[in-house]
Amino acid sequence: MILSNVDNEMKIFLKNYKRPTNFNRVLSGMRPTGKIHLGNYFGALKPWLELQETLYKKGLKHTSYFFIADYHALTTGYEDVSNLKENIKNMMIDFLAVGLDPEKSVLFVQSHNEAHSEAYLLFGMITSIKLLERNPTYKELKENLKEKDLATYGFLGYPVLQTADILLYDPDIVPVGIDQVPHIFITNEIGRKFNNLFKPIFKEVKPYLSETPKLPGLDGRKMSKSYGNCIYLSDSKEEILKKVRSMKTDPNRIRKTDPGNPENCTVYLYHKVFAKELNLGEDFLKEIEEGCKKAKFGCVDCKKKLAQNIISFLEPIWEKRNYYQTNFDKVLEIFKEGDKLASAYAKEKVRQMKEAVNLFLF
Amino acid sequence: MILSNVDNEMKIFLKNYKRPTNFNRVLSGMRPTGKIHLGNYFGALKPWLELQETLYKKGLKHTSYFFIADYHALTTGYEDVSNLKENIKNMMIDFLAVGLDPEKSVLFVQSHNEAHSEAYLLFGMITSIKLLERNPTYKELKENLKEKDLATYGFLGYPVLQTADILLYDPDIVPVGIDQVPHIFITNEIGRKFNNLFKPIFKEVKPYLSETPKLPGLDGRKMSKSYGNCIYLSDSKEEILKKVRSMKTDPNRIRKTDPGNPENCTVYLYHKVFAKELNLGEDFLKEIEEGCKKAKFGCVDCKKKLAQNIISFLEPIWEKRNYYQTNFDKVLEIFKEGDKLASAYAKEKVRQMKEAVNLFLF
Repeated sequence: MILSNVDNEMKIFLKNYKRPTNFNRVLSGMRPTGKIHLGNYFGALKPWLELQETLYKKGLKHTSYFFIADYHALTTGYEDVSNLKENIKNMMIDFLAVGLDPEKSVLFVQSHNEAHSEAYLLFGMITSIKLLERNPTYKELKENLKEKDLATYGFLGYPVLQTADILLYDPDIVPVGIDQVPHIFITNEIGRKFNNLFKPIFKEVKPYLSETPKLPGLDGRKMSKSYGNCIYLSDSKEEILKKVRSMKTDPNRIRKTDPGNPENCTVYLYHKVFAKELNLGEDFLKEIEEGCKKAKFGCVDCKKKLAQNIISFLEPIWEKRNYYQTNFDKVLEIFKEGDKLASAYAKEKVRQMKEAVNLFLF
Repeated sequence: MILSNVDNEMKIFLKNYKRPTNFNRVLSGMRPTGKIHLGNYFGALKPWLELQETLYKKGLKHTSYFFIADYHALTTGYEDVSNLKENIKNMMIDFLAVGLDPEKSVLFVQSHNEAHSEAYLLFGMITSIKLLERNPTYKELKENLKEKDLATYGFLGYPVLQTADILLYDPDIVPVGIDQVPHIFITNEIGRKFNNLFKPIFKEVKPYLSETPKLPGLDGRKMSKSYGNCIYLSDSKEEILKKVRSMKTDPNRIRKTDPGNPENCTVYLYHKVFAKELNLGEDFLKEIEEGCKKAKFGCVDCKKKLAQNIISFLEPIWEKRNYYQTNFDKVLEIFKEGDKLASAYAKEKVRQMKEAVNLFLF
């Protein structure tokens, strides 16, 4: 019902949207479809880190759940799984390298937790096919990914799986991008139906739209593997220097002596993001802005500074990456512990679900 | 592909059908949608018992798997689950009462075994929606059960769940009714696709059409709860006497003195079935036949004899039913052990599946 007119629903949602401030439980996941890039970092991981710290400061431990959505990687990519294992492994390392902390958050792998598939199966029983067909990203992806086979049962049902992923952990909020908000509508619709039919064991979850500004790709478009405009967490210094050198700047600034407009330049936009990350203060940004506007330096110099800042930002992450790569047993230990914590919570929820639908439990 | 023309496919199948004789592993399940009736017994349980004994005589133990398909009960009945638990419990008792033997077969409950939902999820990723929409029983049930909500994700996907149910245990044959044969086509199609895409870990399974003649309902139509023409395993003597009294006989035999035609009489058909079950020999049937043809006795007497035979047939089952009802802890013990055996086998198969799709295993 709520999805009969998604656009309208979204308009109303955004008009009334207030970022939730009172929450104690958080959940989010990421699909291991490739290396993590800076777009993923600013779009998802950084908000996760902030939420992790918010809850920890409240005295809450292990009430934020962050997981690797490996089953979801199969919904859009069953035909080529050659890199899947490597992607999952790298994502485990990257989660830890960016600062997700097993002392504060539960970090786990979706497919290691049977409860997800059990809840997916049970929710599927009450989910109308029409609801799934109306899912806007379903239609959109089917249009845009024509080279892939998306006419599968798994792809049609990925919002059912997401519903399981989410509702198993009773989160108050789910940090998502704006394009994911309709999935939260679907999740709540399925949860409500279960509650009404059987027993009220699920609460409404709220989408949490982050304040963190998104980082566009090197060419100013959305940062995306398929556009080839990414900086990856695992890039080397040389790759970063090369990639930043290739960035587009203000097209009206042709010669070094031409004054430029920073507001029309992706490099400047990046500068703002990384200056903030590195706490470089207002002066640094003003210098960049004036240097461009008054043609005090050329784009090449400006890019060198940016590349250096990106490297400075990434260095502690690289250090941790290296550590976890050479001590992968530590990573395994952490995720095994996370799997255990997540399973324990989700298993009990599945038990409640089975009881609610009147299955025979031992 | 194989299902592009199911009717044609079925024609070819039936034309070439040879009942498999060389098999070592068997699997079948039953949906706990109500009390077990004699139609279920002769249509499914009796063939299962025969297969159980065949394998046991071959020296094979625990290579026949018989399970209560409780998840499948939800695919067509999520709106009313009020009797589900009771139905499962009764089915556990009935399995044992008719002679399924935990020393010979693995008896288990589907929903107690997470592997089924995990394999269902994984198979769903590669299953085309078109294949599921072409499933003839999908179309048929949607037509015939208009009072139920069958436009669900779970109902569309029940052949995917059946594929999981079957392929997890590597059976050579699956005893089914003829209307279920297309599901075996689907199972093999999904299994082949998995094998081709990832790794050949599933074998082709063969539908096993039983030789046991079906028992029609009291009115001669298919025995079915919805027709109200059933004799249940749990019926009392009085109910059986009453039900048999109500059976239709040869419509041309109006008075006791009219000669009848046994071939036109459901009571006689029943006589044949139960005379065989009770080893009453040729003479008994001849007596019935002649008594009818020559109007030596009336339908009332003939029915009394039948009722007595049905009761004699059911008495040992009732005895066991009573035993297991009053010793339900024994039933629990047996099914817990069965769950454990089934889980152990299926878990390993799921591990192979996950490995084949290149997930990261601990």
